[in-house]
Amino acid sequence: MNWQEAMTKYLIAFIQGLEVAGIKKVVISPGSRSTPLALLLYRHPTIMTVVDVDERSAGFVALGMSKQSKEPVGLVCTSGTAAANYYPAICEAEATNLPLIIMTTDRPPELRDVGAPQAMEQQQLYSSHVKKFMELAVPEASEAMYRYSYWHGMKMTNLASQTPRGPVHLNLPLREPLLPDLELDWKYKQTTQVFETVESFDDAYLRELITTCSTKRGVIIVGGSQTPEMAKDCLSLAEKLGWPIMGDPLTNLANCGKNASVLMRQADLFLAQQPKELVPEVIIRIGVLPVSKNIMLWLKALSKLPTIEWLLVDEEKTWKDQLQCSDMILPVSEKWFVQSLLTADLAETNREWLDQWKRYQLTTTGILENSLLLNSVYSETSASLTLLNKIPENAQLFVANSNAIRFVDRFGKSNQKRYHIFGNRGVNGIDGIISTSAGLSLAKPNKPLFLLVGDLTLFHDMNGLQLMKQFNLPITIVLLNNNGGGIFSFLSQRQLESHDFVPLFGTPLNLDISKVASLYEAEYAKPATLVEFKEVLDLAIAEPKFRLIEVTGQQSEPVALYEAILADLEKAFERASK
Amino acid sequence: MNWQEAMTKYLIAFIQGLEVAGIKKVVISPGSRSTPLALLLYRHPTIMTVVDVDERSAGFVALGMSKQSKEPVGLVCTSGTAAANYYPAICEAEATNLPLIIMTTDRPPELRDVGAPQAMEQQQLYSSHVKKFMELAVPEASEAMYRYSYWHGMKMTNLASQTPRGPVHLNLPLREPLLPDLELDWKYKQTTQVFETVESFDDAYLRELITTCSTKRGVIIVGGSQTPEMAKDCLSLAEKLGWPIMGDPLTNLANCGKNASVLMRQADLFLAQQPKELVPEVIIRIGVLPVSKNIMLWLKALSKLPTIEWLLVDEEKTWKDQLQCSDMILPVSEKWFVQSLLTADLAETNREWLDQWKRYQLTTTGILENSLLLNSVYSETSASLTLLNKIPENAQLFVANSNAIRFVDRFGKSNQKRYHIFGNRGVNGIDGIISTSAGLSLAKPNKPLFLLVGDLTLFHDMNGLQLMKQFNLPITIVLLNNNGGGIFSFLSQRQLESHDFVPLFGTPLNLDISKVASLYEAEYAKPATLVEFKEVLDLAIAEPKFRLIEVTGQQSEPVALYEAILADLEKAFERASK
Repeated sequence: MNWQEAMTKYLIAFIQGLEVAGIKKVVISPGSRSTPLALLLYRHPTIMTVVDVDERSAGFVALGMSKQSKEPVGLVCTSGTAAANYYPAICEAEATNLPLIIMTTDRPPELRDVGAPQAMEQQQLYSSHVKKFMELAVPEASEAMYRYSYWHGMKMTNLASQTPRGPVHLNLPLREPLLPDLELDWKYKQTTQVFETVESFDDAYLRELITTCSTKRGVIIVGGSQTPEMAKDCLSLAEKLGWPIMGDPLTNLANCGKNASVLMRQADLFLAQQPKELVPEVIIRIGVLPVSKNIMLWLKALSKLPTIEWLLVDEEKTWKDQLQCSDMILPVSEKWFVQSLLTADLAETNREWLDQWKRYQLTTTGILENSLLLNSVYSETSASLTLLNKIPENAQLFVANSNAIRFVDRFGKSNQKRYHIFGNRGVNGIDGIISTSAGLSLAKPNKPLFLLVGDLTLFHDMNGLQLMKQFNLPITIVLLNNNGGGIFSFLSQRQLESHDFVPLFGTPLNLDISKVASLYEAEYAKPATLVEFKEVLDLAIAEPKFRLIEVTGQQSEPVALYEAILADLEKAFERASK
Repeated sequence: MNWQEAMTKYLIAFIQGLEVAGIKKVVISPGSRSTPLALLLYRHPTIMTVVDVDERSAGFVALGMSKQSKEPVGLVCTSGTAAANYYPAICEAEATNLPLIIMTTDRPPELRDVGAPQAMEQQQLYSSHVKKFMELAVPEASEAMYRYSYWHGMKMTNLASQTPRGPVHLNLPLREPLLPDLELDWKYKQTTQVFETVESFDDAYLRELITTCSTKRGVIIVGGSQTPEMAKDCLSLAEKLGWPIMGDPLTNLANCGKNASVLMRQADLFLAQQPKELVPEVIIRIGVLPVSKNIMLWLKALSKLPTIEWLLVDEEKTWKDQLQCSDMILPVSEKWFVQSLLTADLAETNREWLDQWKRYQLTTTGILENSLLLNSVYSETSASLTLLNKIPENAQLFVANSNAIRFVDRFGKSNQKRYHIFGNRGVNGIDGIISTSAGLSLAKPNKPLFLLVGDLTLFHDMNGLQLMKQFNLPITIVLLNNNGGGIFSFLSQRQLESHDFVPLFGTPLNLDISKVASLYEAEYAKPATLVEFKEVLDLAIAEPKFRLIEVTGQQSEPVALYEAILADLEKAFERASK
């Protein structure tokens, strides 16, 4: 595909995004760099355009248009000082809460900071007077990039229209030749329903949704940090709909005090096969995506099918949809959404759909239960699972990033116990895990807390141990010590020779953990066998105090175990399909 | 009062603000500059504090605390690199939508950028990763500054707790000596009820409010840009409550098609006297403050009385309360609030309260109706009022800033006609008025639009006339030409000698407006008398097209007229009270 066609499709998709989110009018100030966007908007069959050669005036014209009904109005200009002329109208729009979508066009990255004519820094040009600034990528010819430009045109327009309403700024780098293909009869396939505020969300719509849902094959995907109470309600909703439900450890679906057969606890494992029969018609997503990469890849594959309806419950109104495929984004609280569906009348649902899922889940649990590696051999993985089995009712568990959360996610079982799992999965850092656990414990000092954490993560935030000592917090740290960065054995780095791998990724610290425990006065134990580990853990549960239990691991063990389990599963499913 | 006492009271008020908005826990990392804030928080009877010497760790401790229930948690540190250590936890809090209130202390302005030790630029330190940055003022001993620190502690905490939840940053400059007065038993008097989201606002609370309202003496103050439909509903609500209501021209209360005796159209004039009998028990504010300075001063005086209950309906959730005295800030849409009260059952109300107000309003209208200056002498003011009288049903009127909106606000009458007034009252600029009017007209091209504007404002945005010409928009510009900046004759500059006043504030442009009209092909007229002006206006109304009607004024006339009216009023009220 040539540049002209690629750019044209990319911008058509972008304009569709603007339109879906409510843009009906755009004020254009002509220039060279903005030509493709200006022409496509000008030729657009339903968007009204007005041309105003003076950008300061254009800014106020858009403001006046928006004033009629508080609807989002676009502004398009070329690069350079043109963009600076919008500033007075942007300040007035901010103060009167009017949604202006400022679209400045720009030279591509390779022509910036090299003295190219009419090129100035346009990023963050309007400082804190816009709700958000976004630099779009240079147009590219791919389905993913059309989706991207569509998505962000829509998202930024919606952001401007949410209370507090206000201006947003998009900077669009465009390469030459700066002419779109005006003959191209092409549309980006997706249409999305967008709601601006909680108040704009119509109850009637919800009722319709419920009717639709109850007659279709659906899946509920839960993500983010959920309380056990919310998890319980989510399970009840899935039961009511007759739909499978899945979510990672932070959702607490598997340990909310309700052992529900609708919960696809082992979805990470059996969805690795991308089973053909498990294709839903509706996907309801609550919160961000779960931790599991296999679930994400499965959803990504599904997102390319045109037939599925995707619904995202977006409590924080931040459009955290990495797949960028939601057909509806509901700006309502997760709790409100689940409660509303729970109290609604639903039709009888087809149980065959759910039964198919249950067969996969049962086959997988069967394999896990029979695995010697998981249940009898002492390792970081088996120690983690032992902790999940033994953790007392109502305790709190903080699961660190990197390997720890993956052990729990992949192999943990659903059970009748209620305990509360936490983690730091916003940007997945390993830099504050000890202190975050101390904070959790300080805020609820009477609940025992267990922390499952690797050695590199412990080392990174060792100062945090001081608070645990000082307040004698009832925290049991289960330290998975594989002497360095175990996660990299799962990633592409594992192919490196050890003279590269070890110093840069393996990074052995050779820490004497008993000395760490001694420094911070933690009760220390280093069990040598799985039986010993269980004994030590029983003691920690019986007498909650600040403890450090060291489990010695091997960096290569978890990946070998995971691959063995996946291979067993593949065989089992092959047998079943014969 | 000494510095120590002033600082202590200022910080106590600030901490009260934090507390009202939901802060129950603060993590403190000690240092010198933060001492006063740290000590006052540490000694606070209900706020839990934890001391963590490592700020990176402290950031994550606060994050962990907030994770338990998504409640706002504070962080306090000293100046310098200490603050930079919070950055990782801030990024995680942003990504997981947790409300952290970062309070960095700082050297006062005079010790910045002069090489003082441990002083670095702390403004906007966390860039776009916090929802808002705010630099507090240096503590001062005054009621107004205690209110200020209370208010912003509360406002920033509330902002962090609104969806999308996230961290905010307050920088607090403190002078030496850095010890608070710990013996001081003092509390800032105010308590406010704060709601985080629309969902957190309880219907039961509204019902209670309604019961309270209907038995008390209240006032409704409307501000911001309102549609005539919304204005009508506001009038109905006031009628139902038996309360006076007031608002400026942009609220459209006086021209929404409903002539209601509850509307205190001339409040700007009669409240200039601050009548003692007109003291309410409840004030419901919808939107920002009205344009009128006298209403603002009246409200400001009331804000010092402890007995009044203030309620702000805050649709955009931006806490635009210049008086900083709201007892309750409701994050609900204005329309929803008014509709809810309109459909509720209310008790009988006492009409005597309303009758008092009506007497003031009637006395004032009587004086206005008998004023020769207003009704017979040709001037900018009488031309403006003639426009209001003659403007046709369903037309649109854009009222420019500076004098134009004040003529309309002070002297305009309430009537049965429905037309729609607009303005740019966000930051009150005179820089885009012509273009904004063009935008309004382009977005509703079939409605005639009238623009009341001064000559300096017209000159500033003359390019905007090009669009009116090009699209032959049905816009009639009534130009109040006093050859320069008329507003300054109302301000303190008027005391200046003319050799200073004229070049700097009077700024005569000596524009030949007929040439402007000719350039942009507007139908031009310059009536010499009020009768002629009326004839020209009748023609403009009969045949809507792009027209420019020039009214010649004197810079000194409006102020003389306003003062004469106020003097008449004072006499009338004196007579009445005898």
